[in-house]
Amino acid sequence: MLLRQIFDPRLAQYAYLIGCPATGEAVVIDPERDVDRYIEAAEAEGLTLTAVAETHIHADFLSGARELSERLNVRVYVSAEGGHDWQVEWATDHPKATLLRHGDTFRVGNIELKAVHTPGHTPEHISYLVTDRGGGADDPMGLLTGDFVFVGDVGRPDLLEQAAGIEGVQEESARALYASLPAFLGLEDHLQVWPGHGAGSACGKALGAVPTTTVGYERRHNAALDFARAGEEAFVDAILADQPEPPLYFARMKELNRAGPALLGDIPRPHRVALQELAALTKDPNIVIVDTRTPRSAYMARHLPGALHAPLDRTFSTVVGSLVEDETRPILLVIDGDRVEEAVRELVRIGFDTIEGFVDEAQLEEWFAGGGAGATISEIDTARMAELWDDPRYRVVDVRSGAEYRAGHVPGATHVPHTRLPRLEDRLPRGQTLLVHCGTGKRSAVASAYLAARGHDVVFVDDDWSGWAASGKPVEQGQPGETSVAATPF
Amino acid sequence: MLLRQIFDPRLAQYAYLIGCPATGEAVVIDPERDVDRYIEAAEAEGLTLTAVAETHIHADFLSGARELSERLNVRVYVSAEGGHDWQVEWATDHPKATLLRHGDTFRVGNIELKAVHTPGHTPEHISYLVTDRGGGADDPMGLLTGDFVFVGDVGRPDLLEQAAGIEGVQEESARALYASLPAFLGLEDHLQVWPGHGAGSACGKALGAVPTTTVGYERRHNAALDFARAGEEAFVDAILADQPEPPLYFARMKELNRAGPALLGDIPRPHRVALQELAALTKDPNIVIVDTRTPRSAYMARHLPGALHAPLDRTFSTVVGSLVEDETRPILLVIDGDRVEEAVRELVRIGFDTIEGFVDEAQLEEWFAGGGAGATISEIDTARMAELWDDPRYRVVDVRSGAEYRAGHVPGATHVPHTRLPRLEDRLPRGQTLLVHCGTGKRSAVASAYLAARGHDVVFVDDDWSGWAASGKPVEQGQPGETSVAATPF
Amino acid sequence: MLLRQIFDPRLAQYAYLIGCPATGEAVVIDPERDVDRYIEAAEAEGLTLTAVAETHIHADFLSGARELSERLNVRVYVSAEGGHDWQVEWATDHPKATLLRHGDTFRVGNIELKAVHTPGHTPEHISYLVTDRGGGADDPMGLLTGDFVFVGDVGRPDLLEQAAGIEGVQEESARALYASLPAFLGLEDHLQVWPGHGAGSACGKALGAVPTTTVGYERRHNAALDFARAGEEAFVDAILADQPEPPLYFARMKELNRAGPALLGDIPRPHRVALQELAALTKDPNIVIVDTRTPRSAYMARHLPGALHAPLDRTFSTVVGSLVEDETRPILLVIDGDRVEEAVRELVRIGFDTIEGFVDEAQLEEWFAGGGAGATISEIDTARMAELWDDPRYRVVDVRSGAEYRAGHVPGATHVPHTRLPRLEDRLPRGQTLLVHCGTGKRSAVASAYLAARGHDVVFVDDDWSGWAASGKPVEQGQPGETSVAATPF
Amino acid sequence: MLLRQIFDPRLAQYAYLIGCPATGEAVVIDPERDVDRYIEAAEAEGLTLTAVAETHIHADFLSGARELSERLNVRVYVSAEGGHDWQVEWATDHPKATLLRHGDTFRVGNIELKAVHTPGHTPEHISYLVTDRGGGADDPMGLLTGDFVFVGDVGRPDLLEQAAGIEGVQEESARALYASLPAFLGLEDHLQVWPGHGAGSACGKALGAVPTTTVGYERRHNAALDFARAGEEAFVDAILADQPEPPLYFARMKELNRAGPALLGDIPRPHRVALQELAALTKDPNIVIVDTRTPRSAYMARHLPGALHAPLDRTFSTVVGSLVEDETRPILLVIDGDRVEEAVRELVRIGFDTIEGFVDEAQLEEWFAGGGAGATISEIDTARMAELWDDPRYRVVDVRSGAEYRAGHVPGATHVPHTRLPRLEDRLPRGQTLLVHCGTGKRSAVASAYLAARGHDVVFVDDDWSGWAASGKPVEQGQPGETSVAATPF
Repeated sequence: MLLRQIFDPRLAQYAYLIGCPATGEAVVIDPERDVDRYIEAAEAEGLTLTAVAETHIHADFLSGARELSERLNVRVYVSAEGGHDWQVEWATDHPKATLLRHGDTFRVGNIELKAVHTPGHTPEHISYLVTDRGGGADDPMGLLTGDFVFVGDVGRPDLLEQAAGIEGVQEESARALYASLPAFLGLEDHLQVWPGHGAGSACGKALGAVPTTTVGYERRHNAALDFARAGEEAFVDAILADQPEPPLYFARMKELNRAGPALLGDIPRPHRVALQELAALTKDPNIVIVDTRTPRSAYMARHLPGALHAPLDRTFSTVVGSLVEDETRPILLVIDGDRVEEAVRELVRIGFDTIEGFVDEAQLEEWFAGGGAGATISEIDTARMAELWDDPRYRVVDVRSGAEYRAGHVPGATHVPHTRLPRLEDRLPRGQTLLVHCGTGKRSAVASAYLAARGHDVVFVDDDWSGWAASGKPVEQGQPGETSVAATPF
Repeated sequence: MLLRQIFDPRLAQYAYLIGCPATGEAVVIDPERDVDRYIEAAEAEGLTLTAVAETHIHADFLSGARELSERLNVRVYVSAEGGHDWQVEWATDHPKATLLRHGDTFRVGNIELKAVHTPGHTPEHISYLVTDRGGGADDPMGLLTGDFVFVGDVGRPDLLEQAAGIEGVQEESARALYASLPAFLGLEDHLQVWPGHGAGSACGKALGAVPTTTVGYERRHNAALDFARAGEEAFVDAILADQPEPPLYFARMKELNRAGPALLGDIPRPHRVALQELAALTKDPNIVIVDTRTPRSAYMARHLPGALHAPLDRTFSTVVGSLVEDETRPILLVIDGDRVEEAVRELVRIGFDTIEGFVDEAQLEEWFAGGGAGATISEIDTARMAELWDDPRYRVVDVRSGAEYRAGHVPGATHVPHTRLPRLEDRLPRGQTLLVHCGTGKRSAVASAYLAARGHDVVFVDDDWSGWAASGKPVEQGQPGETSVAATPF
Repeated sequence: MLLRQIFDPRLAQYAYLIGCPATGEAVVIDPERDVDRYIEAAEAEGLTLTAVAETHIHADFLSGARELSERLNVRVYVSAEGGHDWQVEWATDHPKATLLRHGDTFRVGNIELKAVHTPGHTPEHISYLVTDRGGGADDPMGLLTGDFVFVGDVGRPDLLEQAAGIEGVQEESARALYASLPAFLGLEDHLQVWPGHGAGSACGKALGAVPTTTVGYERRHNAALDFARAGEEAFVDAILADQPEPPLYFARMKELNRAGPALLGDIPRPHRVALQELAALTKDPNIVIVDTRTPRSAYMARHLPGALHAPLDRTFSTVVGSLVEDETRPILLVIDGDRVEEAVRELVRIGFDTIEGFVDEAQLEEWFAGGGAGATISEIDTARMAELWDDPRYRVVDVRSGAEYRAGHVPGATHVPHTRLPRLEDRLPRGQTLLVHCGTGKRSAVASAYLAARGHDVVFVDDDWSGWAASGKPVEQGQPGETSVAATPF
Repeated sequence: MLLRQIFDPRLAQYAYLIGCPATGEAVVIDPERDVDRYIEAAEAEGLTLTAVAETHIHADFLSGARELSERLNVRVYVSAEGGHDWQVEWATDHPKATLLRHGDTFRVGNIELKAVHTPGHTPEHISYLVTDRGGGADDPMGLLTGDFVFVGDVGRPDLLEQAAGIEGVQEESARALYASLPAFLGLEDHLQVWPGHGAGSACGKALGAVPTTTVGYERRHNAALDFARAGEEAFVDAILADQPEPPLYFARMKELNRAGPALLGDIPRPHRVALQELAALTKDPNIVIVDTRTPRSAYMARHLPGALHAPLDRTFSTVVGSLVEDETRPILLVIDGDRVEEAVRELVRIGFDTIEGFVDEAQLEEWFAGGGAGATISEIDTARMAELWDDPRYRVVDVRSGAEYRAGHVPGATHVPHTRLPRLEDRLPRGQTLLVHCGTGKRSAVASAYLAARGHDVVFVDDDWSGWAASGKPVEQGQPGETSVAATPF
């Protein structure tokens, strides 16, 4: 048996290529939408992709299963569990698709994959028990756990309610997750665990940075499973506590993955936009300008009016996905020309297929030098914020997570997690200057850019929050009333 | 660490003596009521009992915990879990008692016992994780599982409803049991499992005849845990299917164990009854005559009028406990003089403390030879039953379990499990001759004796049921309507 | 599958009854010579013995395998491994015997036993992997380890050299034992380990008092296996260090077990000796008088001349086996009449079949009262020994183990482990009074009696050794020269 | 804890980056010589390399430990075990080096690595037990096994004798490997196994294509460990059977790694050689021309005189390392310009640092078109070989492995594994035309090129060997006498 873990560091996502060297066949599990990578990985190992399988309907990216299925004519395996609302619509009645129920198996050469229904993260979620029958074994080597069990954590059962906007189900999901634990804990210690996400994913809260683990190590050390020893109530309480707010675009991903993502074909190759073309584009209100430049001070000093600030790092998908609610809007990138493909892959993975073009830094300088329109956001540090925070002309806007906010915030600060701005921005006051801060300046830079583009009067606080309390400034704890997103669900 | 499993083969019950050789202290877990055995076992190992612990409120025997506590002044550990209705009343506020919550630990010398709440069989059930800290280990050696997990099976979650008469809770209990599984499955493979019952107990349906097992072996081979892999619904369905009818006295044991069994002191030593005394006793309607003679043909040929037939084997407790509903009635034994203590221990374990005396076989022969009153029950085989079964003067009474009955029975036969006769006997017709059969003649002998004593006109079918169908006689399957206990709950 | 561990507390020996309830067949593993116990145990479970199996040629007791084979006509399984010198002679070419090689299997009903060659304790030693195929499993439930792995220890590889007098092999045996470890460590954690001895056996040095264990628990906590982690040399050094001197009779057991123990038939039932008969017996130099009375002060105060002191406790076999080198000599017991069978079983287990008769304590008093010959040994404590030890008229004789002796002893004391007296007694001085001490008075009582019977002038030191050094008396450490058994191997 | 497996697909070698996110420190284990890859990997994770550790003195590549140590001033950890001949000379007395003995530990942030001496593959070999103390665990997560245990196999104990030319040690090494097994088998099932090589390495014979495994899976399924169950002799026999002949350069790597590989600095960047320069180079007898072109027919049709044929695939290191015995000779590559860095990395990893330059295919065509010197080798298939093999003007030369040869070869064929040609080529006849074949044409192409360059009259057999016997042609089995390398060790 051959196994390759294929990592997308941006989403901390693991797809898997599993092949049978004896027959030359291979399956890819949980591919992202730009599937050329999986096809090339299989070819490099001398294998032919004959199947693609999904563990569940993903929320953080668009699945490449349909893309692979249509492009290569491979067999598709998705879950038939979870009830009517959780069926993959495009696969239902598809001639190449097999809908798997708990206990169903399929083979890729001599490798057997067996579906194990493990709801919780989502109702239809299945894991795959992998047995290398070609190697003479009739017992499994490991479990592809998808978003069920991670290294050190379990998949979030609150995403449906938090992100997908399906109200009142998070406790039910947590109980379903608890009821799935015997399916994991019933396995032998030595089985490998091949998870769907690694450290940094929004699908769990305490994921380890070791790529794989074992049933036995998780049985001993997984923090979430540890709560399960104290029974169902203790588990449910612990698992729902202090989960970070998921990005808003997760709900859209769910819908698209269920319905079937549009076929992508080749990766889009946007052209370099000439300056005269840029003049027209900056006037088109439908265009979304995504400025990826670093450091953030470059953006604050001067940027195209209305441009979002979205550095091309692990936060890129989250920022663009959360702040641009309509993925059909065309995108103009401000970007280093060598990194265009990287950005494009990120965008298509979350459904932004129309990339109108790009300009690079040198062009931008030329644009401004030639008198092109530019905008600026002013910056302060927390020492200055300390002088202004209770001045009625200003309003502190805290864009950190709910857990961070509750642990301590500027008294009277309005709380809006930066990934929730499009839904909550209209509650921010228009007559005051917004002092936008987070923990380090990273998230508040993104939020400042967004709010400025929406016409607010914004000052960007570029500083570490940790210094605030240390210097004896006032701190309030707990829920603040109507100003927090937690008090006013969207 | 020292561990001794102390077996009661009649109830297939295991108590445990666990001691610390370094300090000379020991604890006994789940003792039966005749506690001299545990005290002697500890002494033989050079240990002093300093504690007694219970896993749960037992249904199949009276606990010896109170007896030990009062007699030796040892500390008592019982569960504080399960809610108000499941508190051990006698131990509440008792100065020597500690009520344990999930996660609580206590020590006996260098041995640590940790309570793990594992409801299902009963709501307050706890298991004990045993760690030999004297041996330098800080990880446990095994789990005392009580009636939670057995060798090859799990404890019945239906007993409360079936035996204790608490209606409508068996599904809830089965779900609670499912939710307890992570507490077991979360343990490492190499831990020993020390169960509360072995093969033959009425507290489970498929117990193995190996005295102990391991977490890993059960993870792989326990039939009940195997259902859990398919999720909660599959588990609940499987676990409630085809459980044998528990003996009626279980409900009484629950009540007495909760309230606190009467203190016993020394084991009663009944005297040999003189024949003139026997004459008086046989006329006393309050006396219960329990005839233990084997083979059963001896009883059928001639017995004291009104005597029950209860052979002194593994079924003795079940028969006496089920057929005598008032444990304060005095008992007269017909028994081999060498086996009186054996029978007395059986009786006090289920609360029959008043043993009036005994007569042996030779005395009985003398009694009959001297013209003493005797009664007889006639016997037939299934060939003869085949000639009579549809004759309206006769009524076939099937005293097997519900599962056996449903799998195939004489058409029109009335079904009454032999352990339920006191509650259902008044539904049997008085005008017909009852042809009482079971699978082999063993249970129908007991039932025939009971019914004859209650004034029915009885014929005992002493034959194997398996021959009936094989010889082409009519067989009906499934529920038969109002004549079955299943259709008419008590 | 049914499994019963059958314990002999004197030798801390475990035999096993393993049966198949489906077919009614059973095998007994490593029976002692009084085999009625195994036959009865099988019958009590409704099983018929069809086979007997040995793990190795025992040194601490006579095997009952031949006895069972001849009496019940069952099949015999012994090891064919270990080379020519280690073949069970009586079984070679026996029509009912099967000689097993590594990997061979046999079945008892649906239970499979597979021989695993595990030399070290002895060269031919095999363990049995037990699989309950009747229960549907095709993987083993446990390993019958004989004297290979115990709870917390491994079997001694030095016995052959130390006890059986085969010089220069203990290191080779320790290396063979090391090379056997993969056969154990290669097993899965959850397998049960059913050892041949428990706490108190002379076949290992640190056996735990829990009757069974698991591969995983031993992998984690077995002290001997722990040394193996540091490699072969560390293991060999540790395993040979400080093993207690084995009893001398072990060499004889080996020989008899290899050749085939004499058939025993029914357990001997010695008669109560009349006093006139006693007069004759006490004059017969061939008779061995074994005085089992407790406390030891009774013996010291007055005993039959020449009588050995051998309390009927866990040391009985060791004392009689070590101090009486010719097992054909007839034995006269001084004993409580209720415990005769107990003593007789102990004796036949180590080959003493001729028990001439017994007298009880009351008879003995009558004997002495009637002027019968008696002898006395005087007692002192360590305070008195401190006054005498360097007086040239006295010689301190230390009968503790070599390890105890080396850790600290009376300067100039002669060292003879009490189990080695017959081989070394002639090196003790005849002109001095021997002050015989041990750690508590128990072993020195035995040794004093033996030495007095051999004509030495003996004073019995009945005190705890631990007080000696604490009170500031002189202590010497290490080897003392030619007077120690360690310096003068036999 | 962070762990990244860094794969070199050519040598199927795994280095490991292990870091502590809390402190930002990281260690690299078993780096190859072009260390920029590890430095970049650490940086990408936000970590600083503070240590480098080796499992053993490698034979298949030059270690990057010294390079990293000197370039980054990091701490170096190497084995102090294995005796005087197996000390890493450059590290002895080096101020930054720590020599580890069995049981020694070191830390990188909160990650602990513990040395476990596991000789067999080499005498000084250590494995590292990795514990993530930062994650709260005090038990290990896995074992870095180096060349001790692989996925499905163990490291070859015969390399020292076979490749390093240390005669008579392979059995001793196999026994040492057996004695190391408890160090592995003593670990718990759930530990991850992070091996030093994957499928395709010459350091083992049956490595699986899954990147990591677990102790428990190997305990159950590792073919080599399975032999260990049958004892030491069975293991030694099995482990030494049919190992492929290792490449000759392994001996050189051992020496260089022990002494300390020369510092490399930046990766060499060879220049494109102009045609006039090529004319001079082709006449320099010290220059080694390495022609990497595919398909092999291109080389056979026309190549620079004296050029080796070495396709740039997984065999490249083996071919160049084996056929060029002096790594100081300058190399001229015939290669695709885009793949120069790839080839250079391969070369420096095995010590070829002087890469004089390269020409590409287009230049070569131009060279030949311009009348530059070229050479040709004629090709035949096996059908034609069947007509010539017993013609005395020809000699069949079989360049397959010994195991393949012994399984069946052309009668009278001379056997020389292609990796042993420099040592054995002088035994080939000069007066005959050599018909050079292997199994598929791949190895015989390499050998034909080498032999032609050495002045032999060569015909390249480009065909599958499997067809020979199938078509009824004569086949001889077993050893052929003096013509085989197996009969004439080097």
